[in-house]
Amino acid sequence: MSNELYAKMTVRLYEGETKCFGPGIARLLHRVEGLHSLRAAAISMDMAYSKAWSIIRQAEASLGFPLLNRTIGGRNGGGANLTEEAKELLRIYDAYCCNVNEYAQNLFQEQFAFLQKKPEE
Amino acid sequence: MSNELYAKMTVRLYEGETKCFGPGIARLLHRVEGLHSLRAAAISMDMAYSKAWSIIRQAEASLGFPLLNRTIGGRNGGGANLTEEAKELLRIYDAYCCNVNEYAQNLFQEQFAFLQKKPEE
Repeated sequence: MSNELYAKMTVRLYEGETKCFGPGIARLLHRVEGLHSLRAAAISMDMAYSKAWSIIRQAEASLGFPLLNRTIGGRNGGGANLTEEAKELLRIYDAYCCNVNEYAQNLFQEQFAFLQKKPEE
Repeated sequence: MSNELYAKMTVRLYEGETKCFGPGIARLLHRVEGLHSLRAAAISMDMAYSKAWSIIRQAEASLGFPLLNRTIGGRNGGGANLTEEAKELLRIYDAYCCNVNEYAQNLFQEQFAFLQKKPEE
């Protein structure tokens, strides 16, 4: 068993008090990108389709641009793909999380040195 | 209504896959500090006492030191105060969160400039 402590960051974007983007929707969008379907993406995350829909709609309202290009109707209830803005947002969000995490890890070593357990004697 | 977007960080400490410290337990400890009772602190956060207990115990096991000095029994089920290590951990955790947040906010302005909505025309 590891006894190394480390820090993990979660980055969420807000508009006022309203959360509009975070790790959950980022994961959902990455899955839409691979599966070309919001329904399939939601199922793959054990998320209700209605919840996936409302997360996307809330984010689109706050961000001010569409995240999904939808093909409505059809045998499988239509497909979905990311808009160019959504791809750009995901790219920037992922890079931003990496950058903040790297900063936080370095600072962690410095600030939390007292937490690092000594090897068993 | 504000349409300014901003980022919020959440910092959690892990040991392997096990979460051992984060904003929830930090808030709980701050309340114990003010209320001198884990039970009162839990109630003030709408948290079951048994849950508060298990969060504290899990964290103590991972961190390797006690967080609470308990006075067991007595009319009100005993009181609790923070150990010196817990006070130190809280102080460092709070300062660490501030530092990471400040870094993240500055980077946010830089990286997410494209998200800032233009004023209505």
